[in-house]
Amino acid sequence: MGAPDPLIALPLTGAAPQERGDAARNRALLLDAARRLIAERGADGMSMDDVAAAAGVGKGTLFRRFGSRAGLMIVLLDEDEKAEQQAFMFGPPPLGPGAPPLTRLLAYGRERLRFVRTHHALLSDANRDPQMRFNSPATLHHTHVRMLLESAGTTGDLDAQADALLALLDADYVEHQIHDRGHDLDRLGEAWECVARKLCGT
Amino acid sequence: MGAPDPLIALPLTGAAPQERGDAARNRALLLDAARRLIAERGADGMSMDDVAAAAGVGKGTLFRRFGSRAGLMIVLLDEDEKAEQQAFMFGPPPLGPGAPPLTRLLAYGRERLRFVRTHHALLSDANRDPQMRFNSPATLHHTHVRMLLESAGTTGDLDAQADALLALLDADYVEHQIHDRGHDLDRLGEAWECVARKLCGT
Repeated sequence: MGAPDPLIALPLTGAAPQERGDAARNRALLLDAARRLIAERGADGMSMDDVAAAAGVGKGTLFRRFGSRAGLMIVLLDEDEKAEQQAFMFGPPPLGPGAPPLTRLLAYGRERLRFVRTHHALLSDANRDPQMRFNSPATLHHTHVRMLLESAGTTGDLDAQADALLALLDADYVEHQIHDRGHDLDRLGEAWECVARKLCGT
Repeated sequence: MGAPDPLIALPLTGAAPQERGDAARNRALLLDAARRLIAERGADGMSMDDVAAAAGVGKGTLFRRFGSRAGLMIVLLDEDEKAEQQAFMFGPPPLGPGAPPLTRLLAYGRERLRFVRTHHALLSDANRDPQMRFNSPATLHHTHVRMLLESAGTTGDLDAQADALLALLDADYVEHQIHDRGHDLDRLGEAWECVARKLCGT
């Protein structure tokens, strides 16, 4: 067992239980190894054995840390989701604040299409679970799109309109459009723009 | 073995291999039994043992006929889909031809919401398979909604608009709205109407 990480040694009221230093290090090693393997061979080609070996960590530790392969995949996706959310909530325009709402909405659609394309395998895994499809982080995307629609002066049922729009960014939908319909991300970005503009009444 | 059904005794060029009479009867018995059991106790409460027993048919015949529980569920859904399709393609207005396209589109949304609610378990099973989500019968619904949008004078990317609208009728989405958000079918029908009217520019 390593010494506690000094950065997280002070108890914080209401904070999650502190990770021991070696647990935190193992977590980072395992996530880095998984990312590297997915980049090299795709998510389907990554086994839990490979991840443990590439991280130089025991397989028991890997399973204790993430529960299952699905658990590991969800943590990976979650970390990248957080970085993307930072960008559209606090980053520079046109994605972040400072640009007009419709401009931000169009930028969000194109950015999210790229993200969904890159992370297709992870998002598709999450889609298999109906609870995952409609819970966090899906809720955050819904809230963001709803807020932009409202700021753009959109009338009517904002929740339904946000849901209809977001369906065009669903991982399996995007993959279907690209693989089976022969569309590319530009074409899908234009489709998003068409529907977004109609809902905003422009 | 029973005598061949006289209605299907003549060979048809390009037709599927003819079913023997007893095979066709067993199929009908098994499907009826499955429908009855689902109506009584829900799809989750229906086992393949129950279906075979209720139909008075051997379990081996059941599995030979439908391959698996999933196969049986898909056949059931398929038959009800066909009846619904007849109604919106050839039935009386406002669902069928004769009513203005926007009226038909609004009627379609409300009818489909009821269908999806009734068949949630079967449709949700199909949703777990990304191929099923975007193939027949999904294609037929897309074609129908696209045709109505076009007839109503909708401009822009009709495919994307049809897809965005149809997302509001997705089985898991509808279930989520009802169970987790506390909405009812009327409220979901109004949401469909709101988005449909915006896309049609009314």
